[in-house]
Amino acid sequence: MKNNNKKICKDWFIELQNLICKAVLELEKEYGSTAKFKKNKWSKGEYRIIEGDVIEKGGVAFSNVVGKFPKDFAKQIPGTEKNNNFWSSGVSVVLHPVNPKVPALHFNTRHIITSKSWFGGGIDATPCLEDKILKKNFHSKLKNTCDMHSKSYYPKYKKWCDEYFYLPHRKEIRGIGGIFFDYKMDNWDNDFEFVKDVGLTFVEIIKDVVRRKMFEKFTKKQKEIQLLKRGRYVEYNLLYDRGTKFGLNSGGNIDAILMSMPPNAKWK
Amino acid sequence: MKNNNKKICKDWFIELQNLICKAVLELEKEYGSTAKFKKNKWSKGEYRIIEGDVIEKGGVAFSNVVGKFPKDFAKQIPGTEKNNNFWSSGVSVVLHPVNPKVPALHFNTRHIITSKSWFGGGIDATPCLEDKILKKNFHSKLKNTCDMHSKSYYPKYKKWCDEYFYLPHRKEIRGIGGIFFDYKMDNWDNDFEFVKDVGLTFVEIIKDVVRRKMFEKFTKKQKEIQLLKRGRYVEYNLLYDRGTKFGLNSGGNIDAILMSMPPNAKWK
Repeated sequence: MKNNNKKICKDWFIELQNLICKAVLELEKEYGSTAKFKKNKWSKGEYRIIEGDVIEKGGVAFSNVVGKFPKDFAKQIPGTEKNNNFWSSGVSVVLHPVNPKVPALHFNTRHIITSKSWFGGGIDATPCLEDKILKKNFHSKLKNTCDMHSKSYYPKYKKWCDEYFYLPHRKEIRGIGGIFFDYKMDNWDNDFEFVKDVGLTFVEIIKDVVRRKMFEKFTKKQKEIQLLKRGRYVEYNLLYDRGTKFGLNSGGNIDAILMSMPPNAKWK
Repeated sequence: MKNNNKKICKDWFIELQNLICKAVLELEKEYGSTAKFKKNKWSKGEYRIIEGDVIEKGGVAFSNVVGKFPKDFAKQIPGTEKNNNFWSSGVSVVLHPVNPKVPALHFNTRHIITSKSWFGGGIDATPCLEDKILKKNFHSKLKNTCDMHSKSYYPKYKKWCDEYFYLPHRKEIRGIGGIFFDYKMDNWDNDFEFVKDVGLTFVEIIKDVVRRKMFEKFTKKQKEIQLLKRGRYVEYNLLYDRGTKFGLNSGGNIDAILMSMPPNAKWK
């Protein structure tokens, strides 16, 4: 049973990677760009990077890593009391747009198996300019998806996201939040359906949020603000991001892990 | 006695901050730039930032922080068995040059008092282009200074530097090394003399290393290499740097701590 779950899960993540790349390529094409993803296969997955005219740098990674957690790191992971073995698979995405009016988008869903098994993931957006309509629109999409599964999800996962994507050293939130969940092990079938819907919602968000703004003009000053905001993104990813830490501690591919870095960033 | 040492030490660090700023300003002037340091005073020190034509971004910070370490962090610090109180003072400097033929320079000396008291510090350089003469010249200056105090210092502190400024996730050293030392508590007077000499050597290194290269032409491609190298600098500072961690854990000023960040950086 568990092995079948692994296969179903892995197959979904591979399919999702393709769907996400397709959505990005559609936007690039619409914009008149011929940018393509560069595919990088490694022993435990494949990460794809695009440097486009809409997405300045985007990374879409699938991975399926089986191994043993380092001892100290294992202490933080459920189900490692008897041994540190794990199976993990997931898709993670970061899109850094050219246009500062388009928010940076971050997505991840994953399934992890130790002696326990659970899902985790989330979607969040980091605009560098205030945009109330975008924020409302973005959150209402997330709420709709959550509500289909349980009315309790959206408030709970939105709060988790706000708490998680916070830079204590700056006393700043990273962006406009979104949803974040982890250690989700209520019911495998329901949880998996939810995770699939979160993935499909991200595909819709890419198309909708990016398309609405990608043709808008922007100023040099706005681009400058974006580069400073990207500096904060770098700080968050290297100081706090659990995905980065998980990757560095679980034998991940360094280029795949740090594919989340922006193409460039500034500090004042 | 101890209080007098504190004062002598603090006065030296304030003087050293001025000497370093003066050296940078001399170079800017020689280059034809009118750039000046912007001084930022805060309750526990003063950090100065320059955005010049020779030094694209440079930070020279003096601080004198007295407080209590957070409990978990204190475990890593000597002399905190009975209580977590500390006194610390020091100067730290990062210079990110415009010209990719000039290496980024990093310097720090500090005195820390808990129930024990010690000095720490170092000088290291991060070129983005290979330059054997520069490397030899840089290291011979450090060796000369070390040798005046003890023949054992240079090999020991060079090794420490190589081990410390290493990015395990990239399996790369940060630059061409230099010297690094910590928990130096052999003899207060001798140690303090050594620390002063390290500071003065850094002033000489700025003048010599930067002046030799600052007028040289460089290509767009070389500037690009510099921006990618700065990405590594950011990774190091946020993932591993003890000064950053010390600052974040000891109530430092966030802008003063992250003044070490480059003005901009790129990731592929």
